[in-house]
Amino acid sequence: MAQLTRIKLKAPYLILIGDLADPTYAKTGFGIVHWRPELVVGQLRFAGCKIDLGVPDLTVTEAVAAGAGSLLIGVAPIGGVVPDNWWKAIIEAAGAGLDIVCGLHFRLSDVPELADAAAISGARLIDVRKPPAKLPVGTGLRRPGKRVLTVGTDCAIGKKYSALALHEAMRQAGMNSTFRATGQTGIMLAGEGIPIDAVVADFISGAAETLSPANDEKHWDVIEGQGSLFHPGYSGVSLGLLHGSQADALLLCHDATRTNISGWEHYTLPSIGDAIDQHIAMARRTNPEVCCVGISVNTSTLPPQTRLDYLHQLQLETGLPCVDPMVDGCGAIVEHIKQLFPED
Amino acid sequence: MAQLTRIKLKAPYLILIGDLADPTYAKTGFGIVHWRPELVVGQLRFAGCKIDLGVPDLTVTEAVAAGAGSLLIGVAPIGGVVPDNWWKAIIEAAGAGLDIVCGLHFRLSDVPELADAAAISGARLIDVRKPPAKLPVGTGLRRPGKRVLTVGTDCAIGKKYSALALHEAMRQAGMNSTFRATGQTGIMLAGEGIPIDAVVADFISGAAETLSPANDEKHWDVIEGQGSLFHPGYSGVSLGLLHGSQADALLLCHDATRTNISGWEHYTLPSIGDAIDQHIAMARRTNPEVCCVGISVNTSTLPPQTRLDYLHQLQLETGLPCVDPMVDGCGAIVEHIKQLFPED
Repeated sequence: MAQLTRIKLKAPYLILIGDLADPTYAKTGFGIVHWRPELVVGQLRFAGCKIDLGVPDLTVTEAVAAGAGSLLIGVAPIGGVVPDNWWKAIIEAAGAGLDIVCGLHFRLSDVPELADAAAISGARLIDVRKPPAKLPVGTGLRRPGKRVLTVGTDCAIGKKYSALALHEAMRQAGMNSTFRATGQTGIMLAGEGIPIDAVVADFISGAAETLSPANDEKHWDVIEGQGSLFHPGYSGVSLGLLHGSQADALLLCHDATRTNISGWEHYTLPSIGDAIDQHIAMARRTNPEVCCVGISVNTSTLPPQTRLDYLHQLQLETGLPCVDPMVDGCGAIVEHIKQLFPED
Repeated sequence: MAQLTRIKLKAPYLILIGDLADPTYAKTGFGIVHWRPELVVGQLRFAGCKIDLGVPDLTVTEAVAAGAGSLLIGVAPIGGVVPDNWWKAIIEAAGAGLDIVCGLHFRLSDVPELADAAAISGARLIDVRKPPAKLPVGTGLRRPGKRVLTVGTDCAIGKKYSALALHEAMRQAGMNSTFRATGQTGIMLAGEGIPIDAVVADFISGAAETLSPANDEKHWDVIEGQGSLFHPGYSGVSLGLLHGSQADALLLCHDATRTNISGWEHYTLPSIGDAIDQHIAMARRTNPEVCCVGISVNTSTLPPQTRLDYLHQLQLETGLPCVDPMVDGCGAIVEHIKQLFPED
């Protein structure tokens, strides 16, 4: 069998919640239920658990009977470590043939009882932080199909959420689109993808090319951005993804009140104008026709009236549709894309 | 012992030439003898070998007696594979306590007899294509010391050679400088370094920060560039290295007659002006004072008179010293650096 160049998960998922107490840690689970309810068969909770994803409670046996493909460990409560009392259920699931999918910072295969159970049942142990082997170097060859990439003035500024919201708005507008995941949570949501920041440096743009392959001319890949061109730690990831995506369209993501790079406070954010200009200047290398199609802003820290003024002002300054996707959705961005890229 | 964040080799080297017939394949060996003769104790050749690095012929035993630290496998004749008749000498060297240093595309430790011999003698098996573990994410924090990075309009356009020539010219001018290697040949020449294109994407700029750490304000790190901002396959590596190096000075490398990206012929090279402008625009993010200090051009494909006209014209257009380092050396670049960065 040829080695996969992209992680592919087996749906639907049984989501492990265990005895989590803090809903913050169940964010991945809530995200999957929100964005992709059709991927979720149920949740696995222990007695006394206060968190509820609002999907059926199933035992491993019930989940298998209901057709589950994977047990998904989205998060763990303390320091990325799975609590001791969770392993029994995880090993039981692997023994019952469910793939185990994990986004934490350790290797599932390093747990001997789990490795044994999976080896006997044929279940796969999938670490979504581990990139596929045998990725190619980027060719830069133009490929058919349309691609929009979310880019940001910083990391952790809504690139994944904006891509999901744009994909959803495109779907509602009757467009043919696919969400392309580049990070662990995105991969669980999409059921496939490549953790682009874990790829060896020489293969970043090649991974991006693999992730968003040639497609119908009218099809849109909506690609989840990673890092930021302006981030002193992660800019290399962002440029490789930008070049490999050969984006036709960029959706710039920003936070209305963030002024400095989060966690790297000695760096100020670029202005919106500079962020657009520098992204376009670099992106033209692999797609000379690239344009910015809108701005997606997290305005949750602004009062409601200030929020509208802020977006209105930004729209005047840039001439682009500006939305908060959590409040406004991405309909205005989709309308603009349809004008810029007429299908007929 | 804390894990090294940079490969460090044990000099001096015994260079394995074996029974190589084609001098092209001995390029690394010739390069080390040319740039760093003090690192070379001798060469290990088999009967009938036609290639001669011009250093003493030594057996393993003689090399050990002469204080050798490592046996260096610079290249192999066919497809990166070490010929069967070389292994006896390599295993003998490891058994005698010499580190084995290899720049080829396989793991030395995968050869059982070699791993055994090294385990007994305590010799290290060092694959210079394998980056050190535990690299940090780039902080972007400004650090003292001066740094010049060679950048290019393409890959394989003289960035390593230019950095070595600039380092040599700085030394001759009495400046305090260190060559910082980012690729396998450079690492063998420098005796240490980080193969930056083999690092996981998230750690590119962190690796660059580790490679060129804080230093005296008057000290110059001369950093070997990798890839090109304009390369559709490798731009991510180049941007991470640019940001992590926090370069004060850039030396742009070019080839006088190359018009397209080598091996990616569907991409034309940027103009010299665009190449300077875009590098400066991106580099300012981590060092707002960055400037371009000159242009290093491979003019070997031009007739002698055309060569002078070409460099003269380029100098007029850019206002920067333009040299072919193989013909002119880098004295003119060093003079310009001294004017731009006066020490008093």
